[in-house]
This record gives sequence, C-alpha cells and structure tokens, in this order.
Amino acid sequence: MNLNIALLPGDGVGPEVLKQAVKCLQAVEETFNHNFTYKEALVGAIAIHKKGNPLPDATLKLCKEADAVLFGAIGDPKYDNDPNSKIRPEQGLLALRKELGLFANIRPVQIFPTLIDNSPLKKDIIAGTDFTIYRELTGGIYFGEKKLNDEGTVASDLCEYSEKEISRIAHLAFKAAKNRKNKLTLIDKANVLESSRLWRKVVAKIGESYPDVALDFLFVDNAAMQIILNPSQFDVILTENMFGDIISDEGSVIGGSIGLLASASVGSESAMFEPIHGSYPQAKGKDIANPIASILSAAMFLEHFKLFEEAMAVREAVGKSLKKGIVTPDLDASSKYGTNQVGDFIADNI
Amino acid sequence: MNLNIALLPGDGVGPEVLKQAVKCLQAVEETFNHNFTYKEALVGAIAIHKKGNPLPDATLKLCKEADAVLFGAIGDPKYDNDPNSKIRPEQGLLALRKELGLFANIRPVQIFPTLIDNSPLKKDIIAGTDFTIYRELTGGIYFGEKKLNDEGTVASDLCEYSEKEISRIAHLAFKAAKNRKNKLTLIDKANVLESSRLWRKVVAKIGESYPDVALDFLFVDNAAMQIILNPSQFDVILTENMFGDIISDEGSVIGGSIGLLASASVGSESAMFEPIHGSYPQAKGKDIANPIASILSAAMFLEHFKLFEEAMAVREAVGKSLKKGIVTPDLDASSKYGTNQVGDFIADNI
Ligand SMILES: CC(C)[C@H](C(=O)O)[C@@H](O)C(=O)O
Ligand SMILES: CC(C)[C@H](C(=O)O)[C@@H](O)C(=O)O
Repeated sequence: MNLNIALLPGDGVGPEVLKQAVKCLQAVEETFNHNFTYKEALVGAIAIHKKGNPLPDATLKLCKEADAVLFGAIGDPKYDNDPNSKIRPEQGLLALRKELGLFANIRPVQIFPTLIDNSPLKKDIIAGTDFTIYRELTGGIYFGEKKLNDEGTVASDLCEYSEKEISRIAHLAFKAAKNRKNKLTLIDKANVLESSRLWRKVVAKIGESYPDVALDFLFVDNAAMQIILNPSQFDVILTENMFGDIISDEGSVIGGSIGLLASASVGSESAMFEPIHGSYPQAKGKDIANPIASILSAAMFLEHFKLFEEAMAVREAVGKSLKKGIVTPDLDASSKYGTNQVGDFIADNI
Repeated sequence: MNLNIALLPGDGVGPEVLKQAVKCLQAVEETFNHNFTYKEALVGAIAIHKKGNPLPDATLKLCKEADAVLFGAIGDPKYDNDPNSKIRPEQGLLALRKELGLFANIRPVQIFPTLIDNSPLKKDIIAGTDFTIYRELTGGIYFGEKKLNDEGTVASDLCEYSEKEISRIAHLAFKAAKNRKNKLTLIDKANVLESSRLWRKVVAKIGESYPDVALDFLFVDNAAMQIILNPSQFDVILTENMFGDIISDEGSVIGGSIGLLASASVGSESAMFEPIHGSYPQAKGKDIANPIASILSAAMFLEHFKLFEEAMAVREAVGKSLKKGIVTPDLDASSKYGTNQVGDFIADNI
C-alpha cells in the first residue's frame, strides 16, 4: 500500500517519540512490502517561534494532502501562565482539528498485565478494564463564541451543539460498541445543561437503530467517580468535547501509565494519530520519554487503513518490550534504556 | 446561642439521614446549653409532587428567614431520562443556591484512618491526603443563558464569569489556605477558555495580597489525573462551577466512602449544609443509608457559627462510631446497624 504521511513533531518530547513511531513504520514497510512517504511540518510553540503562527499555512496544506497525520505533542509552559498572550501553541492543535474536520477522538483504555502494579488503583478494582472513549472534538465550548468585554472584567464561552454534530459521532460510537461488548454509555450533565439534553435526546433516538447495543446515561460528576470505583463496567463511552477531555485524562491513569496510551482523531476526510501524553517539556532532549504511546498511535494508524496484520505486529513488538523490561525509566525506575533504544528494540521486533 | 434552622429533607434518603443530623444537634443543645429551632419545608421531587414546584415560595421564604439551612438530598431518576420534562427536581437546588446567594461550595476531603482499606486507591497513594475544594456555585455554565432552537436541533449553554464573581470566592479560598498549609491550586482550562483566562488573571492578582500562600495553576484535564496519582499534593483547590462539580465528586471517592463527606455552601447572607451524596433512591426507607455525611454537615454548620467545641464533640462521636464499627453496611458489609442506630449511637456520645 502507498500512503502519504504528514509528520507533525511539535513541541517538547514530541519530536523524539514521533521518531520512534516512524522507525516502527519503516520496519512495517520493509516486512510487509508497503511504501509510506513521510513529510514533516511545524506546529505549536515551535511554529510560533519560527513562523509566528501555531498552524502555518504550509502545515495545514501538507496535512490536507496527506492520507494521515502523525502528531507528536504540543504546548510550552511559557504560554500557560500568560493569559494575555494572544497567540498560544494549543490554537494550532485546535485549528488543525477544526480544519481537518476531525470530529471524533478515539481513546482506548486498556490494562497491560505487566504494568498492573504501576496503577494508583488497587488490582481488584482495575481487573478486566477495557473501554474506549469517543470524545466529540470539533464542537462544544472549545469552539463556541468567546467574549471578553472591553474592561476585561467579564468573559464568556459558548457551549453549542447541533443534532448533526452529535449524530455523526454517535453512529461511530454505536458501531464500535457493536464490535465490542455491545454497551454504550453517554456521559452528560442533562440535569443542568440544555446541550446535554439535546445529546441525550439525539443519542437515545439513534440507539433505536442499534437494538443490540445496551445504552445507558451517566451524569459527568457520577462518571468521574465510577471510572475510579468500577472501571470495568464500561465498554464504549461517548461524550462531548470538554467532558471528554477531563474523563479521558482521568481514565488514562487507570492503566498505570499515560506513556502507553494512544489516540486517533478521525473525520470524514482526514485522520490524525497521537500519543495522549503532552509535550512533557522537562524531559525534552534527555532521551527518557516513553515512545510507546507514539508507537501505538502508529498501530492505530495502520488499523485505520485496515492493515490489521501490520498493526498486530507492532502491538506484539510493544508487548515484547514490556515483557522483557526494555522500557524507559518511567515504567521501571531501574531501567537504563532510553527513548531511542526502546524504539530500536520495538522496530527490530516487527 | 439561639439559632433558627430550616430543614429541607428533600428526596430519597434525604429525610432519613437529616433526621440523624437533627438528633445530634439536639444532643449538642442539651450538652452545651443552646437553643436551636427547626422548621421543615419541601424541596425537589417531593415538592414537585405536592406543590408542582421544586422550590415552593414558602420554602424559599423559610430559608431566607433562617440562620442556616440543613439540606438532605435531591433528585429522582424518574426525571433524569426525560429530557423533555420542563420541571426537574434539580432546579429546586439550583434556584435555592442562586436565591440565597450561596456562591461558595466548600468540600473537605479527608481520609478516615479506619476506612483506608475501603478506598479504590492504594494506601501509599492516599496517605496524607487532606484538602478542601472551593467550588464557585452560582455562576458559570450552570446559570448562563440556555437556548434551544424552535426545531429542537441546536442547543446551547453560556459559561460566563465576572471579575466580581471570581474575586469573592477567591478571597475565601486564599483565607482558607492561610489557615491551612498555605497552598492554593486554581483549576481551569486557560489554554482553551476565555472565562478560564479571566479566572487565572483575577486569581493571580488577588494572590499578590496573600504573599504567604503559594499559588499554582492546573488545567482541569491534568487535575483529573493528579487527584488520583498524587492527592496529597493539594491543600486548597479553587475552581469554577462545572469543573468543581466533576473534580469534587472525583475527589470524594479517594477516602473510601462518599457516605462520609459533607459540604457547606455559603454566601454573604445565608449558609446551607448538606451531605455530598445524592438521594440514593434505591436505599430509600430501608434504614441502610449512611447518616455520617449528614451528621458531619451539622458539624460544619456548628463551625460556621464558631461553635468549635460543639463541632469537635460531634466529630469525636463520629470517630467513635467508626472506630467501634457502629456503622451502616456500606462501610462494613457484615454490619447489622441501621441508619437510626448509628444516629442514636453518635447522638448519645455527644
Ligand atoms: C492541548 C489541549 C488544547 C488539548 C485539549 O484540551 O483538547 C489536550 O488536552 C487534549 O486532550 O488533546
Ligand atoms: C444535583 C446537581 C444539580 C448538583 C450539581 O451539579 O451542582 C450536584 O451534582 C451537586 O454537586 O451538588
């Protein structure tokens, strides 16, 4: 298969981990006789630094022309505590999601048996946990109108959703549930928010066309408890943008390491794959960042193009590195392996 | 001291647990020579049922005239899955908060040593956890304009904050931090939301008048992870309404039981005290609901009126019941004690 891949290394440890993912994809090309081409572009703080724009036109163009985007990470603490800076790295990521129409962010949460002791939760609580979050990614309060009055004393953000925005991701989530354990949980705040009541109405209606899928509803505050108290109750979780941001990060710690979790952001024309960890600026350039999440995002990329055998080869190589303890220090404090060595080991085992 | 207390038992197990709190306050009256008067009124689903209104005028009037309100619980599943019902129990609670100007919801999260094994988190993770959440309660997306277009296909909620709304609760939170471990963490989403950027600006400015308090900022998605990964890092958490709803419920499971956690909602004129657990309709009338959260909310009420010795007597009696295992089955599956017996034991020990 011929595929054009846009590489967006971004900030912090993004470039280092993405490099390992590319190594693994090159191993896949060789082993399975594919032909991937890679073109790199700037995004985030580094793009602000070099081009004055967190999403330069050239980057967007490259992404639109590519078959898929592999993303590193975004963000620089320099901008976080400066509420007045008008340009921020995150705008690059948000604009990219919007421009590419990536309306569904898909985050699988699984437990890696060898890492179960790394979890902050007790073993019996997390046993059997295996769910996937479908987070709406181009609507809601992230993209609604923002206002600040002239005096700078009143600020607002609008959370708006249309039936269309809800239904396209709902269909994806129901289909995913059909291929899994036939359960879908909608997380909302329908006892307070008008937008949540629309979500509940639209999703309930769509549920009628998926009679095999058991649908239930959970208020977001209760969901924040249930994910810790009993995570194995979930199969597919569907939720809006802001709740998805919070709940999926909360879910990401269950497995014991955020350094292992990947995500896919998909739309009708484009798809983007990225580790869910951030730019982790303290680790930048130290060869200590865990590359596995980025490598698993490459596996999700392969699955997206139905290259299931190839994806499995990547996943198995990752499994081998975990089993043999060829991992970065975040997973095993006594480990002497760096980002590059772990990447090499996994690529060599594909 | 003479105090007029409005009792709002509400729905589900609310009446049962509130009754135990009143028992304990009566014991305090006797032991410490105070004179409290109690007047009861309807709120929530039961008020809809009897008066067609989740917050009848008579209830509001009683609350306004009282020195403080003791609240049971609110909510009935009958309304939750009916997005079309125009009247919902929760409206009673929201209207009460707004009408009484209860802008700050204060939720202490502590670990009870005898219950440490009930926590879903590992012992070494929760050791030393002791923080208090200040959640803004009368602003933000809860109370902003809600819209639904005529076709019922587009819905929105506005999240708006003014400098004044932020600064009044920020001062309370800084003062609390000064009396505790001198640390304040603002949770927001300033990398995306305009309203969060206003929070960050206003809180940073106010922080200058509290030079002893170390102020830091955390994005809400990161906060949702940190609360599980390392809860003992927190002292006072300050946040807006919606984030506070989610984060405080997440925080409530750390200690091993939501049945023990109380909260105070305060404004410049009124104050209301309630358990943070909900109406728990499945348990209604079974004499199994845990009354301790409601009893501890009575302790917070006493502290609010500077009756510290009295509050301590209540807390010590609760401690005794936990230590002796005179608790409801949620805390100890083999327990044979009911809601009433636990309430009696605690009241007798004041
Ligand atoms: C960087 C930030 C804007 C982003 C978000 O909030 O969506 C991140 O937290 C994520 O979840 O991908
Ligand atoms: C019942 C509901 C409206 C309420 C809220 O969301 O504020 C509850 O969850 C709470 O936290 O007190």
